[in-house]
Amino acid sequence: MIIVMRKDATEKDIEYVVKRIEKLGLKAMVSKGIERTIVGVIGPEDKISMQPLEVFPGVEKVMPVLAPYKLVSRDFHPQSSIVEVGKGVKIGGEEIIVMAGPCAIENMEQIRETAYRVKQAGAKILRGGAYKPRTSPYSFQGLGLEGLKMLKEVAEEVGLPTITEVMDTRDVELVSKYSDILQIGTRNMQNFSLLKEVGQTNKPVLLKRGLSATIKEWLMAAEYIASGGNTNIILCERGIRTFETYTRNTLDLSAVASVKQLSHLPVIVDPSHGTGKYNLVLPMSLAAVACGADGLMIEVHPRPQEALSDGSQSLIPDKFQELMEKVKKVAEAVGRYI
Amino acid sequence: MIIVMRKDATEKDIEYVVKRIEKLGLKAMVSKGIERTIVGVIGPEDKISMQPLEVFPGVEKVMPVLAPYKLVSRDFHPQSSIVEVGKGVKIGGEEIIVMAGPCAIENMEQIRETAYRVKQAGAKILRGGAYKPRTSPYSFQGLGLEGLKMLKEVAEEVGLPTITEVMDTRDVELVSKYSDILQIGTRNMQNFSLLKEVGQTNKPVLLKRGLSATIKEWLMAAEYIASGGNTNIILCERGIRTFETYTRNTLDLSAVASVKQLSHLPVIVDPSHGTGKYNLVLPMSLAAVACGADGLMIEVHPRPQEALSDGSQSLIPDKFQELMEKVKKVAEAVGRYI
Amino acid sequence: MIIVMRKDATEKDIEYVVKRIEKLGLKAMVSKGIERTIVGVIGPEDKISMQPLEVFPGVEKVMPVLAPYKLVSRDFHPQSSIVEVGKGVKIGGEEIIVMAGPCAIENMEQIRETAYRVKQAGAKILRGGAYKPRTSPYSFQGLGLEGLKMLKEVAEEVGLPTITEVMDTRDVELVSKYSDILQIGTRNMQNFSLLKEVGQTNKPVLLKRGLSATIKEWLMAAEYIASGGNTNIILCERGIRTFETYTRNTLDLSAVASVKQLSHLPVIVDPSHGTGKYNLVLPMSLAAVACGADGLMIEVHPRPQEALSDGSQSLIPDKFQELMEKVKKVAEAVGRYI
Amino acid sequence: MIIVMRKDATEKDIEYVVKRIEKLGLKAMVSKGIERTIVGVIGPEDKISMQPLEVFPGVEKVMPVLAPYKLVSRDFHPQSSIVEVGKGVKIGGEEIIVMAGPCAIENMEQIRETAYRVKQAGAKILRGGAYKPRTSPYSFQGLGLEGLKMLKEVAEEVGLPTITEVMDTRDVELVSKYSDILQIGTRNMQNFSLLKEVGQTNKPVLLKRGLSATIKEWLMAAEYIASGGNTNIILCERGIRTFETYTRNTLDLSAVASVKQLSHLPVIVDPSHGTGKYNLVLPMSLAAVACGADGLMIEVHPRPQEALSDGSQSLIPDKFQELMEKVKKVAEAVGRYI
Repeated sequence: MIIVMRKDATEKDIEYVVKRIEKLGLKAMVSKGIERTIVGVIGPEDKISMQPLEVFPGVEKVMPVLAPYKLVSRDFHPQSSIVEVGKGVKIGGEEIIVMAGPCAIENMEQIRETAYRVKQAGAKILRGGAYKPRTSPYSFQGLGLEGLKMLKEVAEEVGLPTITEVMDTRDVELVSKYSDILQIGTRNMQNFSLLKEVGQTNKPVLLKRGLSATIKEWLMAAEYIASGGNTNIILCERGIRTFETYTRNTLDLSAVASVKQLSHLPVIVDPSHGTGKYNLVLPMSLAAVACGADGLMIEVHPRPQEALSDGSQSLIPDKFQELMEKVKKVAEAVGRYI
Repeated sequence: MIIVMRKDATEKDIEYVVKRIEKLGLKAMVSKGIERTIVGVIGPEDKISMQPLEVFPGVEKVMPVLAPYKLVSRDFHPQSSIVEVGKGVKIGGEEIIVMAGPCAIENMEQIRETAYRVKQAGAKILRGGAYKPRTSPYSFQGLGLEGLKMLKEVAEEVGLPTITEVMDTRDVELVSKYSDILQIGTRNMQNFSLLKEVGQTNKPVLLKRGLSATIKEWLMAAEYIASGGNTNIILCERGIRTFETYTRNTLDLSAVASVKQLSHLPVIVDPSHGTGKYNLVLPMSLAAVACGADGLMIEVHPRPQEALSDGSQSLIPDKFQELMEKVKKVAEAVGRYI
Repeated sequence: MIIVMRKDATEKDIEYVVKRIEKLGLKAMVSKGIERTIVGVIGPEDKISMQPLEVFPGVEKVMPVLAPYKLVSRDFHPQSSIVEVGKGVKIGGEEIIVMAGPCAIENMEQIRETAYRVKQAGAKILRGGAYKPRTSPYSFQGLGLEGLKMLKEVAEEVGLPTITEVMDTRDVELVSKYSDILQIGTRNMQNFSLLKEVGQTNKPVLLKRGLSATIKEWLMAAEYIASGGNTNIILCERGIRTFETYTRNTLDLSAVASVKQLSHLPVIVDPSHGTGKYNLVLPMSLAAVACGADGLMIEVHPRPQEALSDGSQSLIPDKFQELMEKVKKVAEAVGRYI
Repeated sequence: MIIVMRKDATEKDIEYVVKRIEKLGLKAMVSKGIERTIVGVIGPEDKISMQPLEVFPGVEKVMPVLAPYKLVSRDFHPQSSIVEVGKGVKIGGEEIIVMAGPCAIENMEQIRETAYRVKQAGAKILRGGAYKPRTSPYSFQGLGLEGLKMLKEVAEEVGLPTITEVMDTRDVELVSKYSDILQIGTRNMQNFSLLKEVGQTNKPVLLKRGLSATIKEWLMAAEYIASGGNTNIILCERGIRTFETYTRNTLDLSAVASVKQLSHLPVIVDPSHGTGKYNLVLPMSLAAVACGADGLMIEVHPRPQEALSDGSQSLIPDKFQELMEKVKKVAEAVGRYI
């Protein structure tokens, strides 16, 4: 932690800051420059981060030096983590893992048809929403428990592990019974109660990046889960909100490459939500794999025109198969496989 | 709803779109232009908004015409709403209502001292956090139930209604017992489970705008609460996330003036979180009142240097009193009072 | 300047950094912490800011301590500057100065009618564009020299100083002959050639904030002008680009209050471009004055329905007069006058 | 163009709108819905886009239907354009073209050494800045004419065409003499005077996307150049400004895929400026090629520690060679070559 004093800070101001630092058992190093005095704090930063140093008399600004996350950082755990999600599927190794399925589970026929088709094309995990976060209270909200049951039944039939979203602390236990991976959606990335709740389970958690979350906040949200004892965390980039409205969101692939450097956790990419346009899903899938993503999450619907949610970004099974073939080639070009 | 067809759309494509619209009991109006054919949909838009029209063959884009919210719109309810929050305090009338208190309740002494001082200066509602959403799992998380009890006890002593945040669906009942207003924080603006839960109560709800929520999404979140039956909603602008980092957030006062035109709900402003800097709280409070806000929410702490949360944006009681005097003058200049 | 070394930086890496700093005649202070070594640089930061320290072996990040601007900072010049713009009008004192007129000068009748009406209502400066930056090459591009002549003729008739935009380095001399203030538009805020050119004149320059310029970049652009010798600079906040699309831009009034603290230059606000909506101009004008703006720039057009540019944000003269009366009251409430 | 009338619009308001449309020789189609009346305009949209329809009595909002650009759109010119840049190099075909060189030309030794190394590694165009847009007036501003001469001399020695930035309308003629491609930098994307000036030449122009330019505005800027008669335009994505500060900008690769669909112009990517970090240049280069970019622009410096500009994002020649080998594999995976 670096504390920059104002130009007009007095000796007394500087002494007060030093004293507060030392009171916490830390060491202060004072550097008197020509224009400003700077106080460096040596010792664990988190001890002092709770102090509102900016309001101390004479303080101009406070600059943290270390990243505020620990358990999820590569500094702390240099090897890349591999998360086992059931039925032999592992995320974070050389294999690119693709999760596919409809945005929302609508009925048995739809989820079963999709499951068979995506498995055949090479998907390793079946996705499908039972609880849907919808911007409008008047939109389809998902089938709930009934949807969870359909997902589980079909997944066992086809032999794929599953992922589905959990939105409410009260549902964590129930969803854990039916799904192999718990998904935390973008709108809940800083729903700290929910993060703590899934941190108490031992289920793999897929943590989507918040719509306007910085990389640091995203990793801090992962730290919430990890600090509860559950380190089976998969990060998922799904587009951030920017001024550009042509795409629904702006898929931030440099965040994928950055997070692979900053953290040991696996990172996957959701180009369906990330772009909101079915005709951008293929190019963005290829780009994601090229820059180091450990997997993809793709919306597939047998009849997008009839989808009850997000049809405009869903692929039909034929297009999904084509995508898988192209992704395979790019994966090989970067030394991985699918 | 307007559906713009692609340049190369066939007669069959157009017919298919028209048929789907008519199947929903709506009327389609086809306008053939030189470069594009456009299909207008006449009838309730929500009927068709669930259809993924963008993926219909030949469709280029879909443009909604009406606002997607209804109960909270001024179209639906032209008179401005006044929300009664207890102990005779009403928000949304000519009186500017100021809520003040510490970010987090730390102990009886702190909350009591603050309560007396802010009441004396003219605040009408006591604020204080018992459950704190913190970016880091290692930061102070609030006193929980114990904090709620302190808040209630002190509030009764000084005779002010109270506001405090609720973060978890499981806590709504409990917090409702102790507080006069339920606050939904910025990170939970699209925690739809929580919105539905508070929509089931009859408590006034203060809904903070999400960090990157559009005005439309903010009003849709209010619509979630209203559609559950609870229309005692107060909106709160508290800064949005932009590229600017000098201020913690960018306080969007034009959203206040806009929402007053679009909706009948009262709107207040939180300049403390909106700027993150104690020395910007005064000018932004004056600006908020000048442009039509119905109230303010201000962080006050007797000793900001010792605050366990957000000290750097808190005012000391003396500065708060000064602020109230200046706000009074601006309120009068725009035909209101405090 | 603070240099944070990587966790795995070697002694040799640290020595190399120290040597490079000392070679520039600066002093390096090394603080070895538990997790990181930090090197503080003492001496003028600009000397070292040209060094790409981030690529030195072992360096993790570099954090500047001082603001990169000097001539325009309040540290350097604590008193607020007052810019004289001709015909006795001064910006930056207790008087709130309002500039008004049409977006584009269209013909003599339009500019003359507007000039008389805005002067009567209390405007002190006449605005009108002769060179128009338009997003589309097919939109009206302004009358050029002919427009400048009309502006000058009318201004002398009514006795108001003028402001108009200059877009091309080749036009600076010409525009200087016809206008009292040179306006640098938002799209040219970092047109460094143009900044240098107006920095060579002795004309007052109004520098609009760039659409996505940080406060720091805005002040650095002003520094470009000042470093050329021209310190007659007026800053103008006119809205920034954010994710919100309801308003054309997001008017950042906290930037006004911030810049008044960071710099000695006067700051005015353009609510017409800042919001893009005529019905938000009044509330945002009041808010601007309440939070400390030294003036306003308002688009007024006698017949907005016939305007060749930006009609949708222009006020008719009657509404402008109403605005002036309300602004007057708020100005008095904050101890200023109009 | 669709005009949505207010709920309370009168018959007279609607008639007035219709009359104005018809006066322009266009056809108006009125659709009376339950909640709103909608007026569709049939005929060339640009005729009406100059009318400030939003201020007509009774109008709620105006929604354009067609893209405002024409010459650069794929609708207008379905085949992909190939731009010839000299010495047999073509951009926009199956070959991926890489431009490489230092951010700024510093001296003959530096530019010559870099030129030989990048050519050897497979670069097809030599880049180097002679006029540098720098945020600070105190930073190195480029060698100007002297730099242009060095670039030309070295380029002829090694046999590569060149690209360099032009910042001032007055320099266009001069830079055209020395360089094969004129670069318009991100800060000048809406310097309309400069766009018009390069539109008058027959030189290939590389148009960087503005820091906060939408895809539409970027294509409109290209339309400015094309409407002057010069259609030798290459677009360059180089990162947009968002709230994320970990990377210097957010590289928007979905814009690359989008622009390839919307326009016939070739698109290249600049991952050096796009990320600001040398260790993100490789993954983002691979991703760019995977999603359809026609080329790359990479900063290479023999000794980044000594660079006078942007050293922190430059690659050393060895790393550049490694990058070229990896890019080659990804190019082949997507059916292209280098």
